[in-house]
Order: sequence, then structure tokens, then C-alpha cells
Amino acid sequence: MIKAGILGATGYAGQELVRILYHHPEVEIKVLSSNNHNNQVYSSIYENFYNICEMKCEESELETLTSQLDILFLSLPHGVTSKLLTDSILQNVKVIDLSADFRLKSLETYEKWYKIKHQNKDLMNQVIYGLSEWKREEISNSRLIANPGCYPTCTLLCLLPLVKEGILEENSIIIDAKSGVTGAGRFLNLTTHFSECNESIKAYNVNIHRHTPEIEQQLSELHGNDISVTFTPHLIPMNRGILCTCYGNLKKSYTYDEIRNIYEKYYRKEFFIRLTNKGVFPETKWVKGSNYCDIGFTLHNGGGKIIVIGAIDNLIKGAAGQAVQNMNLMFDSEENTGLKSIPMFPI
Amino acid sequence: MIKAGILGATGYAGQELVRILYHHPEVEIKVLSSNNHNNQVYSSIYENFYNICEMKCEESELETLTSQLDILFLSLPHGVTSKLLTDSILQNVKVIDLSADFRLKSLETYEKWYKIKHQNKDLMNQVIYGLSEWKREEISNSRLIANPGCYPTCTLLCLLPLVKEGILEENSIIIDAKSGVTGAGRFLNLTTHFSECNESIKAYNVNIHRHTPEIEQQLSELHGNDISVTFTPHLIPMNRGILCTCYGNLKKSYTYDEIRNIYEKYYRKEFFIRLTNKGVFPETKWVKGSNYCDIGFTLHNGGGKIIVIGAIDNLIKGAAGQAVQNMNLMFDSEENTGLKSIPMFPI
Amino acid sequence: MIKAGILGATGYAGQELVRILYHHPEVEIKVLSSNNHNNQVYSSIYENFYNICEMKCEESELETLTSQLDILFLSLPHGVTSKLLTDSILQNVKVIDLSADFRLKSLETYEKWYKIKHQNKDLMNQVIYGLSEWKREEISNSRLIANPGCYPTCTLLCLLPLVKEGILEENSIIIDAKSGVTGAGRFLNLTTHFSECNESIKAYNVNIHRHTPEIEQQLSELHGNDISVTFTPHLIPMNRGILCTCYGNLKKSYTYDEIRNIYEKYYRKEFFIRLTNKGVFPETKWVKGSNYCDIGFTLHNGGGKIIVIGAIDNLIKGAAGQAVQNMNLMFDSEENTGLKSIPMFPI
Amino acid sequence: MIKAGILGATGYAGQELVRILYHHPEVEIKVLSSNNHNNQVYSSIYENFYNICEMKCEESELETLTSQLDILFLSLPHGVTSKLLTDSILQNVKVIDLSADFRLKSLETYEKWYKIKHQNKDLMNQVIYGLSEWKREEISNSRLIANPGCYPTCTLLCLLPLVKEGILEENSIIIDAKSGVTGAGRFLNLTTHFSECNESIKAYNVNIHRHTPEIEQQLSELHGNDISVTFTPHLIPMNRGILCTCYGNLKKSYTYDEIRNIYEKYYRKEFFIRLTNKGVFPETKWVKGSNYCDIGFTLHNGGGKIIVIGAIDNLIKGAAGQAVQNMNLMFDSEENTGLKSIPMFPI
Repeated sequence: MIKAGILGATGYAGQELVRILYHHPEVEIKVLSSNNHNNQVYSSIYENFYNICEMKCEESELETLTSQLDILFLSLPHGVTSKLLTDSILQNVKVIDLSADFRLKSLETYEKWYKIKHQNKDLMNQVIYGLSEWKREEISNSRLIANPGCYPTCTLLCLLPLVKEGILEENSIIIDAKSGVTGAGRFLNLTTHFSECNESIKAYNVNIHRHTPEIEQQLSELHGNDISVTFTPHLIPMNRGILCTCYGNLKKSYTYDEIRNIYEKYYRKEFFIRLTNKGVFPETKWVKGSNYCDIGFTLHNGGGKIIVIGAIDNLIKGAAGQAVQNMNLMFDSEENTGLKSIPMFPI
Repeated sequence: MIKAGILGATGYAGQELVRILYHHPEVEIKVLSSNNHNNQVYSSIYENFYNICEMKCEESELETLTSQLDILFLSLPHGVTSKLLTDSILQNVKVIDLSADFRLKSLETYEKWYKIKHQNKDLMNQVIYGLSEWKREEISNSRLIANPGCYPTCTLLCLLPLVKEGILEENSIIIDAKSGVTGAGRFLNLTTHFSECNESIKAYNVNIHRHTPEIEQQLSELHGNDISVTFTPHLIPMNRGILCTCYGNLKKSYTYDEIRNIYEKYYRKEFFIRLTNKGVFPETKWVKGSNYCDIGFTLHNGGGKIIVIGAIDNLIKGAAGQAVQNMNLMFDSEENTGLKSIPMFPI
Repeated sequence: MIKAGILGATGYAGQELVRILYHHPEVEIKVLSSNNHNNQVYSSIYENFYNICEMKCEESELETLTSQLDILFLSLPHGVTSKLLTDSILQNVKVIDLSADFRLKSLETYEKWYKIKHQNKDLMNQVIYGLSEWKREEISNSRLIANPGCYPTCTLLCLLPLVKEGILEENSIIIDAKSGVTGAGRFLNLTTHFSECNESIKAYNVNIHRHTPEIEQQLSELHGNDISVTFTPHLIPMNRGILCTCYGNLKKSYTYDEIRNIYEKYYRKEFFIRLTNKGVFPETKWVKGSNYCDIGFTLHNGGGKIIVIGAIDNLIKGAAGQAVQNMNLMFDSEENTGLKSIPMFPI
Repeated sequence: MIKAGILGATGYAGQELVRILYHHPEVEIKVLSSNNHNNQVYSSIYENFYNICEMKCEESELETLTSQLDILFLSLPHGVTSKLLTDSILQNVKVIDLSADFRLKSLETYEKWYKIKHQNKDLMNQVIYGLSEWKREEISNSRLIANPGCYPTCTLLCLLPLVKEGILEENSIIIDAKSGVTGAGRFLNLTTHFSECNESIKAYNVNIHRHTPEIEQQLSELHGNDISVTFTPHLIPMNRGILCTCYGNLKKSYTYDEIRNIYEKYYRKEFFIRLTNKGVFPETKWVKGSNYCDIGFTLHNGGGKIIVIGAIDNLIKGAAGQAVQNMNLMFDSEENTGLKSIPMFPI
């Protein structure tokens, strides 16, 4: 059994991780930790776990803790992880970090977008960006994974095949993204107060959302040249789910089948990526409760423009599920172990 | 492997059944059938099953069909099942009927409330009412189960310990029930049109809801005398979940601990029934996506009145989950096989 | 023009009051005040007022302030009003208090339920409980109104005719109430965090909700003897609206028409009370955005039990709307001035 | 008083029209008509009108009918209006048509997108496209108005100032639009069944939505050359509201203030258009229940790209409200008469 610990187990992503790991046949959770709920019984914080997980959230010195673990999941606020982690901890334990701290290769970019001084330059060269389908081998061989953000996961899975093939005009990419409210976490603020976001829609962090450089970095890395994108997230009055509607200009005209072939080339064998049938477009309801990413597309303007739409469950494929997928890769388990849940509907 | 067939696989309860059985380690689904979607690929009707269930809905003669099956789930409209089933079919296959056709012992009552002529008096004496926790032995030995309605499941689990102990004043029972909209199924009507039920609450079928006689029958059977109840269902703008707030007068004053002991006596060892801590009351969000029934209570008026609150997922414990629980009992599997999912939150 | 001031203008009820008064042809708002938003432009707090109300929230000494006003609305947290108000302020200005501070005649009861020491015994004998339809004359002649709570408004309008006629068994009354989330105000807490209350239903403050003594006081006052009730509020995932499902035992059997006559006797001429047709029950969607209270009922158990259902918009008839109705009474305006909005649907 | 008739009064837009006209001080509704509810009392179809509008929906010969009216609103399915209207009817009465029948100048385009043979070529030269703020004078002088679609209204108000100034690159325009479910009307279908659209988001009619040619026509007309757009509507789980996120490439770089000046030039004096402050973007909640259109924008890529966001209430500014605004123009009333409602919040 893989012995696992979760720091930050009481955020929504942390809690989803606990749930998935409880169902995982090869994992045993040894430690749950939470800054806000130290010493409280887990099921008193999340009553769905009542009679199921009666462990206490405990605080403990990280080096001691990790000596008993095989894997440590960090689901902490941005800026905390990079302070905590050390090379000697990484000797003890493999780490999957769900925060943004190790996602951006350029610390300058990190510090500009997150307004936090990065504490851990040294570990940056060991980090692998954990977009499972695109970094499978590197993930398998790594001890430190930066688990992707929710929007980048969905966007990148939609766009990377096109970018890899070099068929998109650089800088024509527009991502109009829509997320359910769990994406904002369990922290209280007016934006996510029920009566403020229910029955309404808004764009937020227009041009300044911190997932922008993460998307740009990955697209650019694969493409070779710098790619910049227009990224506009919207808040949708629903609990879960992300839909990304991506627009781009193609360097020349393509037919549906030509583009389809490109997607098939990259994703035909992927368990968690489902290319919808022609004329069918992803809806968040069809992936909720699962680790799937559904992708569909259509062409416009005589084949010169493409619209690609992707859907994920933001807490699963966009966070905890992909983290477990990465863990499976790191421990040579079947990649979909513990992640085969069929999307639940209607929820 | 248990070979299963599902008739009426494209209603919400039917679909939930398909999902649960797909995850069940001892079941193989052999046949899916749907009156409205004959010959269609299942995943074109429920795209959550895309790339997962590519079976076609097929129509076939029931006797032939059942000769290849071990268990047949019927998730058909009221009035259909009783026409279809015969004794010779029951020789072939065990049957769990999710409709109301075999729930009411008195056909007169059935015909009065359902306005349908009952077609199958003969099978009535073989039927067991499948409230799993209360009829375990009978279910194990039966070939024909009438799976309880969603409201009755929640209500009866709340009230039966009190009724069994004879501590409630007859006819003082009021059940103020609240259900999510999936309870009304996938049939189109104005009541469940999004803009008509979203952001509103109403009582419906006040005094005339067809689950009333089902609740009364089970309470009366256990109690010995006739019990009649006041039952008021309400429609809540959410997909899933039932909350029943039950009120009753106690024959004498009781303390919290005395009542607690009664509930513990009946439910302490039950996997799927969770008695909430004192002062904590069930919420539908804590059971959604699971087969649990949470129950909490408090006393009022110096211990002379009781308020018991129960919560279930209407499509799971209130339909498909309990059906699978009953199947497990009928096939001597562990009762919770395929049903151990932790409630998912937030969904 | 009636010169009005609003203290606590930035809560949901306060804001609804501002909106209604803006549309009121005989009122001019002179002062808006808010503890949390002092010196901020009102429309920066509520952008629905952008380009409409560009007043600043200002703080000022109450006596000076009130000398320029005809009416002062207090929409402040419980415990604040009773400290602020003095007899000399009441010389300057008429006051409608939307908090609970002056609603309970017994200060002992107030202090027990609100855990606050009441600061203003002296004014208690001047206060009128502002249930407009039942206290019309007293309200007209008063300078200080305790505006009723949202649940009590709906409940009392449902039950008072029956209690007044003396046909209900004392202590048989059960009120199963359901409220939208705006009832909890704009204060941040986990209960009203979107992902915590969306798609779920729960009972809260079971047996201990502070509207209980308010309901009991009014019923008892009219009835002559003490009446105690069982009151269970539930939180519904919608913004606005209250539905109260009230149960009671009748002292003898009644027909529908006999009870109908009683309701007609009290409400036939009421502009804001609509008795639904036989067999039709109130739904919150039909009253939202208006000052109406819809009431419907049915009999059970051979006419020996009654179920009365009432629906209001909690922020209008349950707060700001009734406050303006009371203001109209106090200033001899037509009672429905500024309140004639037809319920808006679908919202 | 302006004597008004409404055909198609029982759709959502029709009903909103009835509500607005009831509050309009210069209008008297003489006739309500509905194909599906002939002879029924209006308030039995929409119980918000209970005790308020007890008129019956009546069918009558159109010429007779219109001889008693000053204005006829047609809120009928596409394809019906163009069959009904004749020149002699237009002699009797002014007409505002809320369907698409007269919106597209090219009947070829109409027939291609709507798959309906147009029945009324003759009247096309009398029609004015009723985008109130941009066609004020023509509307005042017309007897036949094609009231704009909901998406086009919001999109065009966002884009026309930029197009009029000629600063957008042709064919770079992308409109990612989001609508509440009332936009789909009161007709039953699976897409708008509560449990199918609640808690989910999807794009629909990607590339093939029938509002595309309407938007293109108006942009092209003002611009001089043909403009084609990419238009992707999404269905949002909320009752009301449209948000349009519009993207375009600017022919050269602009500063925020330069673009602001353009918007101010066109909209500074408009009652119903509110340009949000810099850094503030429209949200549907701030316009719901009103005839306002909020518009905000930001620049990207060094001022070379623009993102303009607009929000309206789809049933008011996007349908019934703008129709009444047009009626006011046609009858020389103040343009905002009966339309001054402040957005209601939270609804």
C-alpha cells in the first residue's frame, strides 16, 4: 500500500483528494492536516465523511511526518509550499503540489503574477509540470510534481495538439472560460456568497487571471516560440465544472476530418480524454464526478478558424483526480486506478 | 458474475442503476431496454457513458430475454410492470421492480391511488417490500421485490423505530417532505421546466401524493393498528436529494438519550444508516452520491413531541442504490458491494 | 414629500428599502447610512444603483440627522437599535425598526432568545408591532413601529384568522418553514457560501429559531391564552422567498367552505393578501418582487386537520415592503403607494 | 391612453410585456391572445397576475381586433407574423413584432437560417429594425418595428460604436455569449428540463445560431462593408440575463481613454446604457429586472485587442422592455416611461 499524507485536506480540492484516495485500492491515508482545523475530526468538517473518516487533522513537523509516507499531497495556499519543501524532504517522500508554487519556470513571472517572493529556487529544476497525458514519462521519473491549475488543464488539453502541429496562428488564441464556484475554494468572500453569485454571470480577473502565464508557458514550450493568449474566465452559478471555449485562427484552411485526425493522433488511446462525435460539444454535466476531459471542435470561416470546446470536473481532472493520476504514474500503478468512476448524472 | 438486465434503463433511476451496476464487481449487464429509445446507443442518450457503455437499447421478448439473466430490474412507469410479469418469468429470473405496481398489498388501495387496474393479483403474495434494513431476511429469500418509493424509504427509516416501539401517538404523524427535481423523472412537463421550478418552492399533491398509502401501509403493518399520516411533499430547486422532516406526538415524555437508545438499537450496526450527533441534523448535501440515509432528531415541548429529520439521495437510497442493496441480499453478496461510494461534495 | 433616512442601508433588506423608496412617488431619501461602508458611494456597493443613486453613505449624529427627517428606517443588527433610540429622537421623527429589538413585549423573552441586554425598556410601551393588515389603526397612530420578522409575517398572516376565531387546538400548531438564502443577509459565513448551500436543503435552528417567540406572542395576544408552536425553518437554495407550511388540529370538523369563509372575512378586502383558489397552493415564484402574501389551505382527516400554506417575498412583504406599507399608514398615504409592483416572473 | 393588444401573451416575453404595460401610465391593455390558452383567464396561466389581470385570452379576427387598438405587439413564433400582417392592418394599428420575421432584410438569408418561406415581401420596405438607441428617428416615424433579438441587442450595443468608428478589423469579431434559460421560452424540451440544464454549462448552436445573420446585418449596414462574426452562445443555469463577451482586433493600438471617449460619444446621454467604471465589468445581476444595458471594456496586447462585455435582462432590454421603449418612441412619449425600474437584487 502507498502511504499517503495530505496537507491542506480541508479545502475543496483537498477533500476531493481524500475521497478519491479512500476509494483507491492501493493507498492508505496516514495523515490529514489542516491549518484551520487542527485537532478536529475530519468528519466534523466534512460530514459526508461521517462514520467513514474519523481521523483527526493533525499538525506535525514535516520531516518527521514524511519519513512515514510514500507520497505527500500539498493542497495549500499559494506561497506556502515553496517555503515548506526542502531537498531532504524530497529524499523521504514523493510530492505532488496542487498549488501554483512550482508551476511557473520563470520565478520572475511567478513573482509578478502572484505577488509573492518565491522561496525555493533550488527545487525548480526537479519539478515536472504534471499534465498527465503530455508529460507521462517525466512524471513517472519525478519526485516533485507541480499539479496543473484547473483552467490550464482544460485549455491545454484542448489546444496542445493544434499547437504541437504548429497549425495555429500565434497570438490569435482566445480562451473564454467558464467555471463553477467551487473553483474559488471554501474561503469566504462576497463574490462566492450565495445570493451574490447565484442567478448571475460575470467575467472576472479579465486579462489578469494568474492562470494566463501558466497556459502561455506550456503552449510556448511545446511550440518553440512565445505564445500569448487572451484568457477571460467567467463565474457560473453551479458548483462544479469548467468549460473552455477556445478560439484560434488556423494558418490555412482545414477540413473537419483533418483536424479530427490530429486530435485522434494524440488522444485516441487516452483513457481520460473523450473526443465527442462531430456536431456534439462537451457539456460539464457529462464529466462531473469523473476524471474525464471531453473535447469537441468545429471549424468556421471556410475552415480558417477553429472553435475547440473542452469540459472537465474542476475538482477532479482539474485538481485532485489529476493529482492521483500523477501519483499512479509515479508509483507504476495503472494510470486510471481509483479514477474509473463514471460521471454521475444528474448532479 | 450476476447477469443483469434493466428494462427502463433511460429514466433517471434506470440510468443511475446502470452506473452503479457498471461499478459493481460481481455484475455484468447483459441487456438494456428502453421504450423511448429502442435501438439507440446508450451513450447517445446519456453522454456521461460516452466511450464507456456503447450497448444499444434493445427490445426483446421477455421470456427469451430472462432466460439468459439472473436478475431483472424493472424501472418502468407504474402500471406496466404488473402487466409484463408472469410466474414463468419469475422461474427464470429474480426481479426487482422499481415501480409502485407491487408495493401496495391492497389492490383496492392501489387502484384508488394510481387510477390503474392492477393486472397481476396472483404475484402479490410472492412480493416482498424491499426496505432493505427492515426486511433483510424476506428479501434474501424472495424472487420478486417491490423496491420502495423515494419518500417512503426516507420516511420509514426515520419513523419505524418509533412505531415499532409503540411510543408515537397514532395519527399524530406529519411528514413535511422536500425533494429535488430528479424525483419527477425525465418526462417533460411544465412543473419541471427549468424556469418554472428554479428559484421557487412549492408544495404539490398536498394530501393526495401516492406515496401516502405506501407509508401508511408499512407503518401500520409494523404497528399492528392502522396509522394514517399527513404527508406534504415539496419541490426544491436542486437536482438530487430528499429531506423528510417528520413530526409526531409521543405518548409520554422522553429524554434525548432514551430516544437515542431506540435508534441505536435498530440502526447501530447498519452500514447505510448514520445517526447524526446530538444537535446535528441531516442535510442532503452530505448524502448525495451515496446510499446513506442520515437521521437526526430532537425533542420539543418537554419531550412530548419529536422532530425526526432524514436525508437520502433520492436516486440512490431512494431508488437504484436500494435496488442493488436488495440484489446483493438476494444473491448472498456483501450487502454493501458496489455501494460503498462516499458522498461526493460539493456537487 | 416625506423625507426619509435609512440606517443600515447596505444590508439586503436596507437595499430593498432604498429601491422601493426610490420608486415611491411621495418619498425623498435624504440620508443613507451604513456602518461598514461609511463614506462610500452607494452604487459602488450595489451596482444595480449605478447612475441611479450616487449618494454617499454618511455617518452622522442621530439627533441632528433626524431633525431633518420625517421618517427613519432602522435596518440594523439586533441590539443596536434599542441603544440608539431615545424619546427625544422620537419627537423629531417617526421610526420603523426592522430589527427584532422592539418586537417582543417581554424583555425577559427578548434577552433569553437574543442573548442581548435590552437597552430601552422605556420605549417599549410606545411600540406597535407592525403587522400591517392586523394592526392598521395602531400603526397609523404610532411613532415607533417594530417591523415584523419575515417568518412571523408569513406565518401570522396564515394563522391569525384561525386563531382569532378560536378554532385551532392550542399547541397543535406546527410551522414547517422554508426560506431563500437572502434571509440570512449579506454577512459572510460558511452556511451561505455558494457551494455549501447550493443544491442542498437543511433544517436549521430547529426548535431554537428566534422568530418562535415572536410568532407565539402574536398568536397568544390574539387568542387570549398562551399558544406555543413547533417552528422548523429550512434553508432553500434560492435567493428569495418564504414558504410556510402550517399544520394544526381543528377543535371540530370543518368543510373547505367554512374555513374559506373565515379567511374571506378577514382578507377579502386586503390588497396584499391573495387567497388562492381551491386546490391551488402558493408558490414563492408567484409573489417574488412584490408585497403580496398568497395563502391557500386544505383540510385533512375528515376536516379535523388543516394545512395552510403561505408565500411571501422575504425581502419585501417580509421586510422592506411591509415597512413601506407601515410608513404609508403612518403618513395617511394610500396603503399600497409605491408597492403595486406585479410579481416578476421568471426571476 | 394608448390602447394595446398583445398576440402571444403567454410566452415569457409576452408575459413580461403584459407586466410592463400594466405598470405603464399611458397604456391600457385591451386584448390578450394566446394560441395555446384560448379562453383561459390570464392569471390561471401566470399566477403572478392573480387578482391583478383577470382578462381572458381571446381569439379574434385580426382586422376587427386592430380597429380598436393603437398598438399591436406580436410575440409569436417565427414564421407566423409574416403570414398574419397585411398592409391594411398596418393602416389600423402600429405594430411591434418580437419575432424574427421582419428582422432580416434579405429574405434569402431569412429563409436559409429559419427554414421558413417568408410570406410577406411587401412589408419589408416599411420595417424598421428597432434597436432603440441607434434607430430612434426611424422608429418614431414607423408603423412596423422588427424588435431585435436578445443576443443581437446586447452584442450590437457593445460593438456598434467601434464599428461605426471603423476601428475594428473586419472579421476579427468573436462573440462568446451566455444566456439564462428563459431565453429558450416556455416550450418544453429536454434541453430546458430542470435536471438537464441545472448545474451545467454548454455551448449550443455553435456556428449556426440564427442570431448570427441579424448581428452581421446590423454591423455591416453601419460599417459599409460586410462583416462576419464568430458567435457562440452558451446556456447558463439561471433564469434571466445575457452576458456577451466580445473580442476584436483593433486596426491600431488604442488607450483606454481613447476607447472610452468613443463610447461616451455615443452613449453619454443614453438613459438605458451604463458604461461601467474602468476596471469594473458588467454582471447580469446588476441589470436584472430593468431595461438597462451595462457595458464595460478593457484592452489587451498593448491596446491592439479589445474585450467588450455587455449585460442585459434578456426578457426586458432583450425583448419586452425594448419593445415598450420603441412604443414610447412611436407615440412620442418619454422614451423611458414605464421602464424606469431599478434593477432588483438579489433575484
